Amino acid sequence: MDLLSELRDVVPGDRIVADPEELERHGGGIFTYHAPRQPDAVVCPENRDEVAEVLRFANENGVPIVPFGEGSSLEAHTIPVHGGISLDLGRMDAIVEVRPDDFVVRVQPGVTHERLNAKIKEHGLFFPVDPGWDASLGGMAGTNASGTNAVRYGAMRDQVLDLEVVLADGTVMRTGGMSMKSSAGYHLTGLFVGSEGTLGVFTELTLRLYPVPEKVLAARAVFPGIEEAGRAAVAMIRSGMQIGRVELVDARTVEAVNAYKGTDYAVAPTLFLEFSGSEAGVESDVDQARAISSAEGCKGFEFEADEAARERLWEARHEAGLAITRLNPDKKPMTTDVCVPISYLPDALARARETIAGHGFDGAILGHVGDGNYHAVFPVDVGDPEEMGRAEEVMGRIVRYALERGGTCTGEHGIGSGKTGHLREEHGDSLPFMRGIKRLADPNGVMNPGKVFAEEPWPAPG
Amino acid sequence: MDLLSELRDVVPGDRIVADPEELERHGGGIFTYHAPRQPDAVVCPENRDEVAEVLRFANENGVPIVPFGEGSSLEAHTIPVHGGISLDLGRMDAIVEVRPDDFVVRVQPGVTHERLNAKIKEHGLFFPVDPGWDASLGGMAGTNASGTNAVRYGAMRDQVLDLEVVLADGTVMRTGGMSMKSSAGYHLTGLFVGSEGTLGVFTELTLRLYPVPEKVLAARAVFPGIEEAGRAAVAMIRSGMQIGRVELVDARTVEAVNAYKGTDYAVAPTLFLEFSGSEAGVESDVDQARAISSAEGCKGFEFEADEAARERLWEARHEAGLAITRLNPDKKPMTTDVCVPISYLPDALARARETIAGHGFDGAILGHVGDGNYHAVFPVDVGDPEEMGRAEEVMGRIVRYALERGGTCTGEHGIGSGKTGHLREEHGDSLPFMRGIKRLADPNGVMNPGKVFAEEPWPAPG
Repeated sequence: MDLLSELRDVVPGDRIVADPEELERHGGGIFTYHAPRQPDAVVCPENRDEVAEVLRFANENGVPIVPFGEGSSLEAHTIPVHGGISLDLGRMDAIVEVRPDDFVVRVQPGVTHERLNAKIKEHGLFFPVDPGWDASLGGMAGTNASGTNAVRYGAMRDQVLDLEVVLADGTVMRTGGMSMKSSAGYHLTGLFVGSEGTLGVFTELTLRLYPVPEKVLAARAVFPGIEEAGRAAVAMIRSGMQIGRVELVDARTVEAVNAYKGTDYAVAPTLFLEFSGSEAGVESDVDQARAISSAEGCKGFEFEADEAARERLWEARHEAGLAITRLNPDKKPMTTDVCVPISYLPDALARARETIAGHGFDGAILGHVGDGNYHAVFPVDVGDPEEMGRAEEVMGRIVRYALERGGTCTGEHGIGSGKTGHLREEHGDSLPFMRGIKRLADPNGVMNPGKVFAEEPWPAPG
Repeated sequence: MDLLSELRDVVPGDRIVADPEELERHGGGIFTYHAPRQPDAVVCPENRDEVAEVLRFANENGVPIVPFGEGSSLEAHTIPVHGGISLDLGRMDAIVEVRPDDFVVRVQPGVTHERLNAKIKEHGLFFPVDPGWDASLGGMAGTNASGTNAVRYGAMRDQVLDLEVVLADGTVMRTGGMSMKSSAGYHLTGLFVGSEGTLGVFTELTLRLYPVPEKVLAARAVFPGIEEAGRAAVAMIRSGMQIGRVELVDARTVEAVNAYKGTDYAVAPTLFLEFSGSEAGVESDVDQARAISSAEGCKGFEFEADEAARERLWEARHEAGLAITRLNPDKKPMTTDVCVPISYLPDALARARETIAGHGFDGAILGHVGDGNYHAVFPVDVGDPEEMGRAEEVMGRIVRYALERGGTCTGEHGIGSGKTGHLREEHGDSLPFMRGIKRLADPNGVMNPGKVFAEEPWPAPG
C-alpha cells in the first residue's frame, strides 16, 4: 500500500505533511531518552470529521495511529514505535467557547495551557495544570498530566468535565457534560483521561477554570538537607493550611537553574512555595509555613518581592528539567516519576539520592512534594548499554521502593513505552481488565500500539 | 433449583438469611418511591473470599446479585427487580487500617460514614462525604454519592484512591493505590465508583482523609426569594472564597424541618452556610459572604452560636428529606437530582418551583447549590397512575431543562432503575461503550440487572 497516496483520498492534500524535518520532529521527543522512530506519514486534520476519516481508514487498513500534540511527553507517547501515521492535532487549536460564569471552557486538543491562560486572564480566571513545557491540553489529558498546582487544584483528570472522543472505527461520542459533578452512568471521562492515545483521539475538551486568588505570595525556604526540606513539606500539608504550591528542588537542580536562567538562588535543598487566597488567609498561612520551616532548620525564608520575581521563580521551576538536561548536553535525561504515600516522602528522597549516587550518576531531584510526587533526573548515554543497564537499575529501585509502600510508578508522566514493565508490577491483577477495555475501544489495535501494553506484538493478533 | 439449599454448599449456613422481615427489608428502600420486590435470598458474606464464592455461583447459575449496604438509595439500587440474591455487606464492616500520617484509611464496604468519622476524630481528621442518611461507604462509592461538603472537597469519586473489586466470575483485582495521584494505566477506580453494583462488588475501599480545619463557623442567611438565595450562592462561588458548605433550603423545607426537628428557623428561602479554615481566613470569608448576601436583599444573617447549634443545623439539613417525607406520611417521596452549570442555577430553581406548583404538587426544593446540584422533592401516591404520570412529567421537565443547558440528570443519586431513560437522553452516544464495559465485567449479566441499563431483558441474552 502506498500510504501517502491512499491518504490523499481520505483528507485534503494539504493535511498530509511529508517533509523530512517534520517526519523527524514527529519521530522523537524533546525530553525523552527513548529511541526515535519516524512515522510513515504526518497527518494534520483540521476538524473532527477529518480525524474520524483518518481513524476509519487506519482501522480498516491496520495502520498505527499516534496522536501528537507538542511532542513533550517524557515516555515516548508520541513516538510511532510501529510506524504508521502521526496524527498531529496542532491545527485544531481553537478556544471554542469561554463560559466565565460557569467556570468552564471548551477547547480543541491543540490549544496549549499557556495560550488558554493568556485568553482567560481577562475574566479573572485561570487554568491550574502546568507541566513544565507548554504542552497541548489534548496531550495533557492523554497522560493525566499535573504539575506544581496539583497539590491545591488536582491533576488533569480533576479538570476535564467532558471529552469529545473519536474511537478507532470513527465513532464519535461525548463522555461528560458541563456540570461540576455527575453520577450519570459509567465515568468514561475519567477513563479516557490518562489513556495515552490508546483508546481514542480527543477532538474537544471541556475544562474547569478557577478564579484568580485575591492574594498570591511566593517564597523560597532553604534547608540543610533534602530530608529536612521533605519533612517541612509534609508538615505543611499535615497542618491543613491552604498551600498553593510546594515544590522541592535539590542543590544540583538549583545549580542547573542558576546556570540556565541566570538566577542566583542559594545552592542548597530548597522549597519553592506559593500561598494564595484572601489577604488575611495568606498572611496566616505564611506565618505557619515559616514556623514549620524553622523547626526543620530552615536557613533562610525569602519572599519574592514582586510579581516579576514570582514569575521568574516559577519559570525557573518549570524549566528545571531543561536546565538539568543542559548540564550534560551530550546525554539524554532519564526521569523517574514515582508518587509515594506522603509519610514516606522524606525517606524516599534520601534513598533516591543514595541510589543515584551509588550507581555513579550525576542526578538531580525535584518534584511536587506536596502530593508525594518527585522526580529523579539523571542524564544517560543512550549509546552505552552498560550505562543504560545501570540507569534501568536505578529506575527499578526507585519504582520498587514506591510500589512496596503503596505508591505508584508514575504520578503524572504516564506509562508510554518506558514503564510497561512497571505497570505490570503495579497493576498486574487489573491489567487483563484494562486490556479488555483496550479491545473494546480499539479491536484492531491501531491506536498508539506499543504504549501502556508494550509487549503487544504488531500487527495485533486478529 | 432450590436456591437456598444450593447456597448452603457455597457459604456457611449462618450467612444465609431467610426470615420474612429481612427479605422485606432487602426488597424495599427507605427513601424510594419505586415498587418493592423481595429477593429470593439474602446472603451476608463475612469476607472477600465468600463474596467471590457467591458471585462465582451466581454467575454460573444465572442468578441476579444485588449488593446491599444500608438500603438508603433513592433510585432503587438495592431492589432486586429480577429477584435473585441480595448480597448484604453489613457484616464486612471493619475499619481495616487508619494511616493518619498518609491521610488515608482502608475500610470494608459495610462501614458507614458516621462510624468512620467517629473513629478518625482522635487523629484530628475527617471524611467529608455526607449524604443525608448514614449510608455505607461501599454504597456511597457505588452511586458516587456526595453531599454538603462536595463544593469544597469533591464527591465520592474524588475520595476513593483504591478499590478491591470482585468481578462476576469471582476474579479479584485492585484498581488503585495509596498515593494521592497516579497516571499508571487506565483509571479503573473512577470507572468502578458510580457503577451502581453493575460491574462488580467492592470488598475494600481506600479513602482520603482531611485535617479538621482550625476554625469552623456556621450561619443562616434568609432571603426574600429562592432566586435571590440562588444568586447569592453563585456569587459566593464566583468570588473564589474558600466556602465550606452552601446549602439552599426553601420555605417549605424549613417548615418541614421545624416540624420534624423542633427548630424555629425563619420560614423563608435560606442558605445554610459553613466557613472553615484558619481563624483569619474564616473571618475574611464571612465578611465577604455577608456583603454578597446583603446585595441580594438578605433579611437576616445569623451565626450558630456554638458547636451544639452548628451540629443541630447540619443535622436538620441532613434530615430535611426525611422531614419533607413526614409532611405526607401516606405518600412516597419522588426526588429530582439534576446538576446544572452554575450560571443557570437561579433560573433553574425558579422554573422548578413553577413546574412543581403548576402540576399540583406540594414540593420542596433544597440542595447543594454551590456545585449547581439541587433536589425537588414531591410526595407522590404510587397507587395513583394519574398522579404518577404527572410526577414523571415534572421529573422529565426538570431533567430536560438541565440537559439542554449541559447539565446532568443526576448529580449524586445515580441512575438506578428510575432514570435509565434520562441516561439515554443524556449519554445516548456513549451508552454503547458503557454497555461494552458492562459485558466485559459481567458477560452473563448477573450483576444488579435492571439498573443503569434498565431495558435489558432478563435473563440476559446469551
